Amino acid sequence: MIVSNFGGVFPYLVSPVNSDGTVKETVLRDLVEHLIQKGVHGLTPLGSTGEFPYLTWLQRKKVVEIVVDAAKGRVPVIAGVSHASIAEAARQAREFEKIGVEGILAVLETYFPLKDDQVYDYFAGVARAVECPVVLYTNPSFQATDLSLGVIEKLAEIPNIEYFKDASGNTGKLLTIVNRVGDKIKLFSASAHVPLFVMMLGGVGWMAGPACIIPEQSIKLYELARDRKWEEGLEYQKKLWDINRSFQKYGLAPCIKAALEIQGFPVGDPIPPLKALSQQEKEELKGILLSVF
Amino acid sequence: MIVSNFGGVFPYLVSPVNSDGTVKETVLRDLVEHLIQKGVHGLTPLGSTGEFPYLTWLQRKKVVEIVVDAAKGRVPVIAGVSHASIAEAARQAREFEKIGVEGILAVLETYFPLKDDQVYDYFAGVARAVECPVVLYTNPSFQATDLSLGVIEKLAEIPNIEYFKDASGNTGKLLTIVNRVGDKIKLFSASAHVPLFVMMLGGVGWMAGPACIIPEQSIKLYELARDRKWEEGLEYQKKLWDINRSFQKYGLAPCIKAALEIQGFPVGDPIPPLKALSQQEKEELKGILLSVF
Amino acid sequence: MIVSNFGGVFPYLVSPVNSDGTVKETVLRDLVEHLIQKGVHGLTPLGSTGEFPYLTWLQRKKVVEIVVDAAKGRVPVIAGVSHASIAEAARQAREFEKIGVEGILAVLETYFPLKDDQVYDYFAGVARAVECPVVLYTNPSFQATDLSLGVIEKLAEIPNIEYFKDASGNTGKLLTIVNRVGDKIKLFSASAHVPLFVMMLGGVGWMAGPACIIPEQSIKLYELARDRKWEEGLEYQKKLWDINRSFQKYGLAPCIKAALEIQGFPVGDPIPPLKALSQQEKEELKGILLSVF
Amino acid sequence: MIVSNFGGVFPYLVSPVNSDGTVKETVLRDLVEHLIQKGVHGLTPLGSTGEFPYLTWLQRKKVVEIVVDAAKGRVPVIAGVSHASIAEAARQAREFEKIGVEGILAVLETYFPLKDDQVYDYFAGVARAVECPVVLYTNPSFQATDLSLGVIEKLAEIPNIEYFKDASGNTGKLLTIVNRVGDKIKLFSASAHVPLFVMMLGGVGWMAGPACIIPEQSIKLYELARDRKWEEGLEYQKKLWDINRSFQKYGLAPCIKAALEIQGFPVGDPIPPLKALSQQEKEELKGILLSVF
Repeated sequence: MIVSNFGGVFPYLVSPVNSDGTVKETVLRDLVEHLIQKGVHGLTPLGSTGEFPYLTWLQRKKVVEIVVDAAKGRVPVIAGVSHASIAEAARQAREFEKIGVEGILAVLETYFPLKDDQVYDYFAGVARAVECPVVLYTNPSFQATDLSLGVIEKLAEIPNIEYFKDASGNTGKLLTIVNRVGDKIKLFSASAHVPLFVMMLGGVGWMAGPACIIPEQSIKLYELARDRKWEEGLEYQKKLWDINRSFQKYGLAPCIKAALEIQGFPVGDPIPPLKALSQQEKEELKGILLSVF
Repeated sequence: MIVSNFGGVFPYLVSPVNSDGTVKETVLRDLVEHLIQKGVHGLTPLGSTGEFPYLTWLQRKKVVEIVVDAAKGRVPVIAGVSHASIAEAARQAREFEKIGVEGILAVLETYFPLKDDQVYDYFAGVARAVECPVVLYTNPSFQATDLSLGVIEKLAEIPNIEYFKDASGNTGKLLTIVNRVGDKIKLFSASAHVPLFVMMLGGVGWMAGPACIIPEQSIKLYELARDRKWEEGLEYQKKLWDINRSFQKYGLAPCIKAALEIQGFPVGDPIPPLKALSQQEKEELKGILLSVF
Repeated sequence: MIVSNFGGVFPYLVSPVNSDGTVKETVLRDLVEHLIQKGVHGLTPLGSTGEFPYLTWLQRKKVVEIVVDAAKGRVPVIAGVSHASIAEAARQAREFEKIGVEGILAVLETYFPLKDDQVYDYFAGVARAVECPVVLYTNPSFQATDLSLGVIEKLAEIPNIEYFKDASGNTGKLLTIVNRVGDKIKLFSASAHVPLFVMMLGGVGWMAGPACIIPEQSIKLYELARDRKWEEGLEYQKKLWDINRSFQKYGLAPCIKAALEIQGFPVGDPIPPLKALSQQEKEELKGILLSVF
Repeated sequence: MIVSNFGGVFPYLVSPVNSDGTVKETVLRDLVEHLIQKGVHGLTPLGSTGEFPYLTWLQRKKVVEIVVDAAKGRVPVIAGVSHASIAEAARQAREFEKIGVEGILAVLETYFPLKDDQVYDYFAGVARAVECPVVLYTNPSFQATDLSLGVIEKLAEIPNIEYFKDASGNTGKLLTIVNRVGDKIKLFSASAHVPLFVMMLGGVGWMAGPACIIPEQSIKLYELARDRKWEEGLEYQKKLWDINRSFQKYGLAPCIKAALEIQGFPVGDPIPPLKALSQQEKEELKGILLSVF
């Protein structure tokens, strides 16, 4: 049962932190303001681009507080929640709901391999802890356990599990999901996908780091898809694609942080052991960004 | 440089063999005739569906001879070639060209892991052995080594390497290939993909086992794509998708052989240790096939 | 440079927690007392058996405080530290040192894949944060990134990195390490290995969950190895091996917690989504335990 | 039921072939003579070092004919058999038995993933095709499917399946096998293992490429193990270990072929796309070989 109406471009926000661990509040507020001004449809702090695994709980909480406060209700904020323990992930979700987020992006975190019923328990446990809509999310590139179709089908029965964000890049799997639970759960794309194709499959938008850097272009692509201008959309998608490939080449968070620095947002370096781009890599990235504008 | 003009639906033919290893010639001829009557645009013996790794060289040769003879030049035959040794793969390709195939599907076979220049050497070695067009093919699900973008770019410079058949299901990778070498090499889709999306990206058709079973439906989907009726195409694609999922569930060759038996082609069982579907699985498959017609 | 003198049997302690998240202090103290009475040579809270990824920082801290306090300096406590961020892992290590641990087990935690210099930075960062000896640890079964030989060699140059705990079960790799840096870094075995063989290679002992359950037998095996009674040791090792296989079958933490419950230590269930053993599995486990005594 | 009495050092022979595909008969005979003179206990053509996947059936047959003829019954010859099809692998085994081999090394070859009962069918099918003893072999580094403990136990019931050759390097798995079926099936080690430890576990010897290069040293290590001189054996094992690491670094077949060339056996290059060592790599290898003598 889908009651919320999220859709469009939700940038995965970076988490700018100083070397002493404090959050760079000013630039985070500026980035939120900038993206809202550009017309994004929502904001997603604490996704992979937000380096969530590298943050402590207090840092995560601070990031969400700033984003919610800066957004001032103009667009929905869907905050990422992740912990190996269900109880702790549920607690984080509850706290974020109290802070005022409009949705929770529930990210699976695993250590010992999980069976399907344990994956179910995790997402169900997070969803039941809150009243707001929940987005299911796994990233099979970085995690041993993935969401099987059977688990997705069962989770879709939980009322506030309304969205599924897939990072697999596997369009066939998405078509299967649409065919089976398309009436109960809506799709968000990732940037590893060709988002246009996910939109064709009935997707409602995408959550992705690159939208921090190219919000207008992302929105234009979204609008072409929304208006069912598939061929024009594909041509535009092709043009934007090199940006996506850069993120894969340089690493998601390091690349978006470097690109934001280039654009005048002093978000700082990624959190060690993640490494900032080299000077040469930054020059390459600058060239790619220029080619899009 | 693309001089040939292959495109459309190329069924991956099964390889019907008796338990004594002889090829079931009559049913293979009947299947070829049937598919040509249904309007397929070409035939591909010795793909994965054709159980090529389970056949000896003499069985492979016999299969290709029968298919070429039965096709009588009405549609092009693109035969699969695969061996861990470049020299042997090249020899097989030459023999198939002598038999009269119009193209070679060059399949990488690996034992020790290969570096990029070795993958290049393999495909280049096969291509240089023949004059006919060559289709590059890897199946990352079953093989340790994959074709990197750099290798594809370099191989695209070889004149008779004109096509790339991708089985990864990764639409993003395909978009990258199209952006980089789309003028030098054409794409064929696999059934693991959503073929319609590959067509949108400029693909020319698909090579896939399911087209043995649903040739008319496959052709209709192809024609919708060719005529750029994307939305109608997607609806039709969705309808056909369950067939694809069956092949993933039951295994490619066992499933296509079982389905052909159901349709009245006595192609026999897959080659042990591959196993025929159980009676219950065959009933399930029958139900799925009925739902498509 | 190895200045400390850790060696022998270091049980990986379980982390008993109530469903409200509080640590079960009494049983943890009882377990520590019991193991010291049995003669273990040290204690290792917050290893994999200790379910460290499932605990919050405050729970981890509490566990270490209890263990250090209960041990009363009779045996060294080596506490596990792990976080994706170097800064946070270093902070945890410093806090544990203040609490009074004698050593740190530094566990790599990854999300985005790391290159060798980043792995080096992580372990170096933790080691430099403390003065006590540090044990390097990775678990390639659960983590994408492993310690390469080059990184181990470079880390061995850091004065307080004195031990390496390997969970790979790959004896050949260990022999390579011994040959290359055996004078600078000492080996601890895991239970996935045949610890006797690691002792033959010059290993100083093992850190493993099963030692919670069979402390006397573990110590006897250690003493046979220490006294170079290899053949007698191997016969004893063979006898104990089924215990190890149970842990692999049922999962490390769930199995040790169940076995401790059987032995009268009410440590409770593993932390969800980890699941307690079923009644039938507990019966099987009981049988295996009886066969060892 | 073990009726044969194979044991000791069985070099995996290289397969020397000219660029036109003909087998270099003279050097292969010379190598066989040399190794027998040095005292090896048996010979194993067509293992991984023998580049079996890169050879046609006729090349494989020729290699076995030469080795059997040159060995003149002085030591047993155990020839490798491998094909994705059970029928073809069984046929090869029968042909080799007719040629006069004393045993068959049955190597699993997979394309589509196999379930346990299919793996069983494969090995059982090969074993039933011959009367001579059969050695089970899988190489999990290069192949998707491995032999599970359950399958090994079931296969051990087939009378002429008398040996298991493990290339996993996982000593713990071997101890489990010894504990469970040690009375029905004997172990051969690979060079990826520390062979000494496999001997301690009751192993009867090893099959490995490096024994082509260092036959005397391999035999000395074997004799130390046979005489239960474990500590002396381990010191000697440590000394030989760098040779093993070279094979892992440079690739098995390319490295052994290069080393044999250095030793005066003109076995030629590995089969493309495998690549010969570079001049610099050959110099390095020469240095490593000198350090052992």
